[in-house]
Amino acid sequence: MNAFYMPTRVICGRGCVREQGALLDPLGRHALIVTGKSSSKNGALDDLLFALEANGQDGTVYDRVTPNPTVGCVREGLSLLRSAGCDFVVAIGGGSPMDAAKMIALLALQDREDEELFSGGYEPKALPMAHIPTTAGTGSEVTPYAILTNEEQTTKTSISSPAMFPRIAFLDGGYTDQLPEAITKNTAMDAFSHAAEGILSRNSIPLSDVLAKESLRLLYPLLTSLSKGMPTARERDELLYASMLAGMTIAQSGTTAIHGMGYYLTYFYGVDHGRANGLLLGEMLRLCERKNLPQLDEICTACGVSRAEEICALLSELLGEREKISEEELERFAVMAQKNKNIKKSRYEPSLEDLRVIYLRSFGYSC
Amino acid sequence: MNAFYMPTRVICGRGCVREQGALLDPLGRHALIVTGKSSSKNGALDDLLFALEANGQDGTVYDRVTPNPTVGCVREGLSLLRSAGCDFVVAIGGGSPMDAAKMIALLALQDREDEELFSGGYEPKALPMAHIPTTAGTGSEVTPYAILTNEEQTTKTSISSPAMFPRIAFLDGGYTDQLPEAITKNTAMDAFSHAAEGILSRNSIPLSDVLAKESLRLLYPLLTSLSKGMPTARERDELLYASMLAGMTIAQSGTTAIHGMGYYLTYFYGVDHGRANGLLLGEMLRLCERKNLPQLDEICTACGVSRAEEICALLSELLGEREKISEEELERFAVMAQKNKNIKKSRYEPSLEDLRVIYLRSFGYSC
Repeated sequence: MNAFYMPTRVICGRGCVREQGALLDPLGRHALIVTGKSSSKNGALDDLLFALEANGQDGTVYDRVTPNPTVGCVREGLSLLRSAGCDFVVAIGGGSPMDAAKMIALLALQDREDEELFSGGYEPKALPMAHIPTTAGTGSEVTPYAILTNEEQTTKTSISSPAMFPRIAFLDGGYTDQLPEAITKNTAMDAFSHAAEGILSRNSIPLSDVLAKESLRLLYPLLTSLSKGMPTARERDELLYASMLAGMTIAQSGTTAIHGMGYYLTYFYGVDHGRANGLLLGEMLRLCERKNLPQLDEICTACGVSRAEEICALLSELLGEREKISEEELERFAVMAQKNKNIKKSRYEPSLEDLRVIYLRSFGYSC
Repeated sequence: MNAFYMPTRVICGRGCVREQGALLDPLGRHALIVTGKSSSKNGALDDLLFALEANGQDGTVYDRVTPNPTVGCVREGLSLLRSAGCDFVVAIGGGSPMDAAKMIALLALQDREDEELFSGGYEPKALPMAHIPTTAGTGSEVTPYAILTNEEQTTKTSISSPAMFPRIAFLDGGYTDQLPEAITKNTAMDAFSHAAEGILSRNSIPLSDVLAKESLRLLYPLLTSLSKGMPTARERDELLYASMLAGMTIAQSGTTAIHGMGYYLTYFYGVDHGRANGLLLGEMLRLCERKNLPQLDEICTACGVSRAEEICALLSELLGEREKISEEELERFAVMAQKNKNIKKSRYEPSLEDLRVIYLRSFGYSC
């Protein structure tokens, strides 16, 4: 028994927000536009306002979303949505504005106390949303997940509801043209990790594997090219498309131990989310190779390489110098990560010792 | 600029209607069950009634859908829906019950005069639907199309509306276990044609090509196996899954000249729809090869063959002896088909002479 569900309408192409802006019309009359301070300074906000005006819709901007958004940020946006009388939500940005927007749209129709936010069991209803990604990595524009900083658990926690699938995703590679090198690389590694984790997930289905392999087939040469210099406009478009495919993948399969482990690097050391996945992925692939996981061969074949070592080398090239984190800290993360729900979603479920080895080797310690 | 939209939730696996029947609960309180005389005599109706009862929902059966459904049949079902007070629709069967169900669900919310049925411009609203395919070929369970017999135009005509995407498709290969050899082969050729036509369509997009290639990759060995004998249960499951992928493909790309030409064989000679496509597909592939269409190579690669001739030989094997249709009739069809809207959707748009050659050679005439 398996299920595939991907209700988001995906529009791809430069200029698509203006050209296909009429698709926003059925969503509501007044949009809360959820974005970060710089997330929309790439033409996306202008294009959106143009489209809303053409439809006779209003828009109120909430631009205070920070990286790794907090419950406080979601509350602030929700409060603005209510005072302005918004009836739909448009997100512009990377994963942070998109995830904050999802929680705002969800809570707008079913509010809860802060301490209940992470306990699940949401009703399948949320305000309608459109998402405009401005980085090529998160894939959040086509997933039902929102990941928020969870202070109580000292990590980031994913909240899932089918109601959080955006109605529409507008993919315009032009919004990513000016992204700096570090963000471009980190987000690309995030997308690559989503596609690889989709294949390594216990919850993968045949159709998520098809999407994951197509994503890897496109991403591997793009990452190789990124390791040599900044991408062309065409490569930007392909990165955005491939990251969306990886998002469609994890919308079915979920993520695995990599994401579960990476959240601690982000929470405690502020390591960028995509980079955190990139830092850990190589050692996870090596572990899968030692365990003779057949899915590892599928990943290699999709990438067009014969051994995982080639992928590890490429990731190292992209990562450059690694953060300095003490052995004690990494040992502590291994213990914490063991309880993370994503660990059990891995097809090969890493033991505490496996987690130790991955964390330590990922930061240059031999063990 | 391109768009992908596939909102149907697809549940795959034997026993899925009973196991996942709770998914029907949000659709309404009273289902019109649209099926054919024999379409549901395979356990599907029992399973559905079990699921409806578990949800406390009512069901009224309309089982008078005939192959190549007519406007009269849609009217009859609509009338029953109204008198019984149904608020959602469940289809059980091949393309005919599924397509009739779609039109009933559409017209229930926006009725029109018979002469306006084929003129398009429907509002995006229909009663919610679940579809349970009992043949592996049409893919209608994941498309926004309904194809009805169009007496005025002496052909079959496709009506399209995003509102006609079913909310849910339940794919249980067990319902196809008892299908006779001819239906099994004809429907499998229909699915194969959908996947190939998706690649040959002007409206293909990268993601529809991914789905089409995966469908062909699975279907080609299944068709080869079918040419030697009846499929195993596992092959039945794969046929149903691959035909669904081909449906997802044409939901994006539409069909092409093959379907446009095939409708005349069905309308005037009662040739089964899938068989009609199978009869014409070989000559269309040969034409594409003569025109050096790069998409032909993609089809061959996905099938794992080096030349289109191998696919043509397999189709001939499956088709067996061909119908006897006079040259004059085929010449007449070529003239009629030229005006069919599907012709212009082909990446290589066949001329009148091309259409003549395809029709004539498909029925053994040399020209």
